[in-house]
Amino acid sequence: MVHSLVMSILERISGPSDLRGLSVAELHRLSGELRSLIVATVTANGGHLASNLGVVDLTLALHCVFSTPEDAIVWDVGHQCYAHKILTGRRDRFARLRRSGGLSGFPKRSESRHDAFGAGHASTSISAALGLLAANKRLGSAGSVVAVIGDGALTGGMAYEAMSHAGQLGLPLIIVLNDNAMSISRNVGAVSSYLSRLSATTRYQRLRRLIDRVILGVPWFGPRVHPLVLRLKRAVKAVFFKENLFADLGFEYAGPIDGHNIQLLREVLGEARAIHKPVVVHVITKKGKGHVAAEANPSAFHGVSPASSPAMQSSPASSPASSPASSPAMQSSDPLDPPDQPAAKRPTFTEAFGQALLAAASGDDRVVAVTAAMSSGTGLDGFQRAFPERCFDVGIAEEHAVTFAAGMAAGGLRPVVAIYATFMQRAFDQVHHDVALQGLPVVFALDRAGAVPDDGETHQGIYDIQAYRAVPGLSILAPASSGEVGQALRWALAHDGPTMIRYPKAACPPERPAYAEPYVAGRGVYVRKAEAGAEALFVASGALVDEALAAADACAASGLAADVYHLRFLKPVDSSAFAAMAARYRCVVIAEEGVLTGSVASDLAAAAAGDGRAVVALGFDEKPLAQARRDELLAAAGLSADALAATAIALARPTDSGALAIGTGS
Amino acid sequence: MVHSLVMSILERISGPSDLRGLSVAELHRLSGELRSLIVATVTANGGHLASNLGVVDLTLALHCVFSTPEDAIVWDVGHQCYAHKILTGRRDRFARLRRSGGLSGFPKRSESRHDAFGAGHASTSISAALGLLAANKRLGSAGSVVAVIGDGALTGGMAYEAMSHAGQLGLPLIIVLNDNAMSISRNVGAVSSYLSRLSATTRYQRLRRLIDRVILGVPWFGPRVHPLVLRLKRAVKAVFFKENLFADLGFEYAGPIDGHNIQLLREVLGEARAIHKPVVVHVITKKGKGHVAAEANPSAFHGVSPASSPAMQSSPASSPASSPASSPAMQSSDPLDPPDQPAAKRPTFTEAFGQALLAAASGDDRVVAVTAAMSSGTGLDGFQRAFPERCFDVGIAEEHAVTFAAGMAAGGLRPVVAIYATFMQRAFDQVHHDVALQGLPVVFALDRAGAVPDDGETHQGIYDIQAYRAVPGLSILAPASSGEVGQALRWALAHDGPTMIRYPKAACPPERPAYAEPYVAGRGVYVRKAEAGAEALFVASGALVDEALAAADACAASGLAADVYHLRFLKPVDSSAFAAMAARYRCVVIAEEGVLTGSVASDLAAAAAGDGRAVVALGFDEKPLAQARRDELLAAAGLSADALAATAIALARPTDSGALAIGTGS
Repeated sequence: MVHSLVMSILERISGPSDLRGLSVAELHRLSGELRSLIVATVTANGGHLASNLGVVDLTLALHCVFSTPEDAIVWDVGHQCYAHKILTGRRDRFARLRRSGGLSGFPKRSESRHDAFGAGHASTSISAALGLLAANKRLGSAGSVVAVIGDGALTGGMAYEAMSHAGQLGLPLIIVLNDNAMSISRNVGAVSSYLSRLSATTRYQRLRRLIDRVILGVPWFGPRVHPLVLRLKRAVKAVFFKENLFADLGFEYAGPIDGHNIQLLREVLGEARAIHKPVVVHVITKKGKGHVAAEANPSAFHGVSPASSPAMQSSPASSPASSPASSPAMQSSDPLDPPDQPAAKRPTFTEAFGQALLAAASGDDRVVAVTAAMSSGTGLDGFQRAFPERCFDVGIAEEHAVTFAAGMAAGGLRPVVAIYATFMQRAFDQVHHDVALQGLPVVFALDRAGAVPDDGETHQGIYDIQAYRAVPGLSILAPASSGEVGQALRWALAHDGPTMIRYPKAACPPERPAYAEPYVAGRGVYVRKAEAGAEALFVASGALVDEALAAADACAASGLAADVYHLRFLKPVDSSAFAAMAARYRCVVIAEEGVLTGSVASDLAAAAAGDGRAVVALGFDEKPLAQARRDELLAAAGLSADALAATAIALARPTDSGALAIGTGS
Repeated sequence: MVHSLVMSILERISGPSDLRGLSVAELHRLSGELRSLIVATVTANGGHLASNLGVVDLTLALHCVFSTPEDAIVWDVGHQCYAHKILTGRRDRFARLRRSGGLSGFPKRSESRHDAFGAGHASTSISAALGLLAANKRLGSAGSVVAVIGDGALTGGMAYEAMSHAGQLGLPLIIVLNDNAMSISRNVGAVSSYLSRLSATTRYQRLRRLIDRVILGVPWFGPRVHPLVLRLKRAVKAVFFKENLFADLGFEYAGPIDGHNIQLLREVLGEARAIHKPVVVHVITKKGKGHVAAEANPSAFHGVSPASSPAMQSSPASSPASSPASSPAMQSSDPLDPPDQPAAKRPTFTEAFGQALLAAASGDDRVVAVTAAMSSGTGLDGFQRAFPERCFDVGIAEEHAVTFAAGMAAGGLRPVVAIYATFMQRAFDQVHHDVALQGLPVVFALDRAGAVPDDGETHQGIYDIQAYRAVPGLSILAPASSGEVGQALRWALAHDGPTMIRYPKAACPPERPAYAEPYVAGRGVYVRKAEAGAEALFVASGALVDEALAAADACAASGLAADVYHLRFLKPVDSSAFAAMAARYRCVVIAEEGVLTGSVASDLAAAAAGDGRAVVALGFDEKPLAQARRDELLAAAGLSADALAATAIALARPTDSGALAIGTGS
C-alpha cells in the first residue's frame, strides 16, 4: 500500500544533504509526499499523526538550514520526529515504525547519528540542547544546536529552568517554539511575521549593538540609563508579542511566523543561526496539516491506533478489535488508547478507573481529580464533564500536580492524581517529600503501569513498584479486575494516608468471586484453591492474576495442581504470613509486572524459601525494554500464562528440565 | 544563657493574636527580641541564621495581618520559620531546636496547627498554597493562603508550573517573594515602594476595573482593543519592575517594598489580602538583619554549626571539634557543613570528592562539574576557582542540572553532577530517562547520602540506593575512605556508562591497605580477613565499613573471630560470588546505610541464606527518620559498631540471646 504512492522526489532523498538542491516548489511537493507516507504508515501501524503532519514543513526547513549530525536537532517529547526519520536515511525502515525490532516512534541515539538526543517525556529538549552546546564550545566544535519544543511542553517547569540557565550562559541556543495551540490570533501573527524577520536579521542586531555602544559611551549617564533603555525595548516588544517571557529570560525573539511557509522558515532559521545568541523562533503550525480530517479535528488525530492489530493484546480472553484503516480511532491525548469498545466488551483498566472515580465522587464532595495534560488518557473525561470544577488539569507539570494535590489533601479534600506510571517519575520527590512524609491522603492512580505496548523504552511502566515501595507509609494496590479497581479506589479514599493504585494499559480480565471479597490492608485473596491441597502456588497481582489463572489451568491439564493467590497489596505485605502460606506448597511461582531488582516478588521469594521448596520470582530485567506488543513483552519476561505454566512445571518436575534457582528471572 | 536576655514583650506573646494589640514601636522592639533569641539559640544548636534574621519583620507583619491557623502561611524550603515558630506557641521549646526530640528546623504539620504545610526542599510552597486555597474554596472556608518564597527557590521550575496554574485558576493566592539577593538597586526600590502601595490598593483596583468596563463597553472596538490595553499596562509596569514575569502569568504585582518596614508590610499585605486576586508581594529583605557580623557577610552566616557539639559524630575515630560560640563557623550554602578542620584532621567525604574532582579535571579536559545551588556544600568551590568555565551552577534546578549534564555527555564531555541525595530525588526521572536509558557517561556525586544529622525527615539520604538500584545500567559505588573516593571517581570517569558515587556527611575514616586495591566493576575487597578462617562475616560499604571494622574488633575481644568485607559496588553486585563467599561463615551481618526495603543488603541476605547459616541484613526502617545526630541515627538503626558487634555475637551465640530471623532490621 505504502509503495504504491507516487514518491518522485522523496525517493531521491537518501539524506538531508539531498534537500539543499531543491527549489521551494519542490520542497512543498516533497512535503506532500512526506505527509502521504506518514498518513499511510500511521494508519497501518498506529502512532502520532496530527503532531507529525504539523511539523513536516518545519522539519524540511530545519534540514535545509542545519546539517545534521554536525548540527544537532533535539526534538522535545520526540513524538513529532517521523519526517525527520524519513529524511535522515530511515525511509526504507519506516514501514516497521513502532513494531518490534523496527523504528522507534521517538528519537533514539542508538538508531541514528541524526538523533542527537533521545526523548519520550516532555520538556527535556532545552536542557539537553544547552548541554550539547556547552560540549561543542568546550571541544571546539562549531555545530549549531536547535531545540524544537511545543507550547504544551513549555508548561513543564524543567523547560523554564533550562531557559533561565541558557539566558545566563548566553550560548547561541536556538529554540524553535512549535506553537500549535492556535492561541495567537491571525492578525497579530500577520503584523509580526514582518517584525520577526526584521528583529532576527543580522542588520537589526548590528544596529542594536551600535545603539547600545552609543548610549553606554555617554559618561556617567549612559551606564545608568542603559538598563532602562533595554527594558523599554522589551516593553515595546511586549506590546506586540505575548512572549516577553523569553526576553525576560535573556533570549532574542523572532516570531510568530507561519510554520508552513518553508521559504520564510528557511530565512528566519538562517538568521537565527547567524546572530549567534540565545534565540527563540516562534513558529505557528497547524496540527494535522494536509490531512483534511486531522486538520478539522486535530486532537482526535493526535494519536492513532493501528488499523489492523489487536487493540488489547494482553488479556488472554480479549478478542482483537479492528478499526477501519480509513478512520483511525479517535484519541485525544494518547496515541495508544484503545478504540472505544462495544458496550458488551470489558472495559479497560483506564475506563474502569474513570467510572469508579465518578461513582466515588458522586457520593463524596471532597473527592477531586488532578491530571497533567492527560485527562482523556487517564480516563478522566467523564469526571471532567460531570464535575468540571473538581477536575484540575495542570498541564505537563507532574511535580506541581502532586504537591497541589498534597495541598488540597492538607486542606481537607481527597484528591486523586491520575498520571501514567512513566510520567509519575517526574514527581518522585513530590510523592515522597510533599505527600508521604506528611502522611497526606492523596490517591495516585498510576495508569500504564506495567508493560506498555509499542512506545518502547521511554514509556514502560515497569519501574514503579520498585521505586515507590520504600516511600514511607505509601500503600500500593494492584487490582485485578474492573470490580477490584472500584474496591481499591474506595479503600484508598477511606484510608488515612497516601495510596497508589497501579494498573496496566490493558482490558480488565473477567470478574471472579474472590474479587468481590472486601479489601483489607495488606491482605491478598485466593482466586483459585484446590480443596485437596495443590502442589504448586502461583502468586500474582493486577492483570497478571488472569495470566496465573490460565497458567494454573495449563498446569492442571499437565497433571500439576496449582493454586492462585492474588496479593492485592504490593505494600504493605505481611511476609511472615506469606511464608506460612507458601510453606504448604512444594513449588511457588511469584510473578510481578515490574522490574525484578528490588521487587516485592524477590522479597517474597526469599521469605518463602526453605525446606527444599522450589521458589522462583519472575519480573522484568531492569535493562531498557524495547517496543513490542504487550503480549510479546509479557511472554519474553516469562510472565505470560504459557511461560508461567512452563516455569511451574519445570520447578515441580526438576528431572524434566534443569534446576531453577531462587530469584532468577526469565 | 538564653533566659538571661531581656524579653519583656516576647514573654507576653503566647500566640499570634497577642501581636495585634501592639504598636509599631512595640513590634520593632519585639523584632529585636526575636533576633536575640534566634542568635542565641542558633549559636548553641546550629541552624540557619541569616535567612531567619532576614524575615523576622516580615513574619511579624504576616502574623499581624493573617490569623493562623484559619489563614495559612506556607514557608518555602522552610529554613526561615524560626520567628514563626516562636510566635506560634513554641517559644519554650525553641531551646531544643534541631535536637533529637526537639523542635524541627523546618515547618511540620505534626508539630503545630500553625504549620500549614511541611517543607525542606525548595520551590513547593506555591503548589501547596494553591492546593490549600482550592480546598478552602470547595469546603467554603474563607481563610487566606500566603506562600512565602525566596528568590532562590523561584529558580526551581516547579514554582513556575505552580504560578502558571495559579494564574489560570485565578484563586486569591498571595505570594510573598522574599528577595534577599539585593539585585534591586535602592533608588528603584525607593520609587516603587510608593507605586507598589498604589497598585495594591483597593482604590486602584476599583479604578482599574472601571477602566476595563468602560473600554469593554464600546461595541465591537472595545473587546478588540482591550487585550492591547492590558498588555500596554503590563508593558508600562515592565519598565519600572523587572518582574513582569508575574504579570505574564496572571498575577497582580506589588513591590518591591522594604521588608524591614513593619508598618509598610502590614499595609501592603492587608491590601494584597483585600483585592482577592492572585498577587505577588515583592519584599526586599536583608539577610542577617540585626546581626552585625551576619549582615556584613550573610552567606557566611546562612547556616551555622552548633557551638559546642561534635562536628563529626559518625566516625568512631574522629574527635569533637568545637567552634567558639561567638563566631559561628563560616558556611556558604549549608547549615551543617562542619567547621574547617585543622590540616592534620582527615577530610570529610565532601572535601575528598572536591579534591579528587580537581585532580581528575586537571588531567582530563573533558571533565566538567554541575551543581544545583550547592557548589560549596558539595565541595566544588576549589573546582569552581580553578576551572570557572567548567563549573556550572544552574540554581535550584536539579531536573535541568541532570539533563544538561546528559546533553554534555552526549556531546563528548564527562560531566560530574554533585547534588545532595535528598535533592537528587527531584531529578529521578532525568537520571532514568535522559541519562540511563541512553547509557550516557554522567557521574553523579551523591553527597549527604545516608543518615544526615539534625535536619530530620526532609533531608535524610537513606532512600537513594533503593530508588536507583533498578535504574538501567547505572553503577552505584560507595567508597569507604578519602583514597577510595578518588578511586571511585577515576573508575567512574573511565567507565562508559552512568555512575553514582554515594557518601555521607561525615569525616572520611582512615585509609587501610585494602582501600588501595584497584576498583574493578562489581568487586568488593576484604578489609579484614583472618588467615585461620573466621566464624563471622561483616559486609558493609561506604562509611559503614569503618563501623564494621570496629565491630570486628569488639567481636574479637569477645572471642568471636570476624572478617570484614567491603562491597565497594552496590550495583552491579555478583550475588552468586557473594553467596559462595558467605558460605564459608557461620554467621553473616550485612549493613547498609539506607532503607532496608528493597535494599541490596536484603537481596544479599537472601543469597547468603541456607545451610543453617545465620544471616541478617541491617538498614533503616522506611518510616520518616526524625532529627538526631548521625551517631544517634546509626545506633538506633543497629548500624553503629557496638550494635553491629552485638548482632554478630547474638547470631553466633544464639543461646545467649533470642534467635534472629533473616532480613529483620533493628
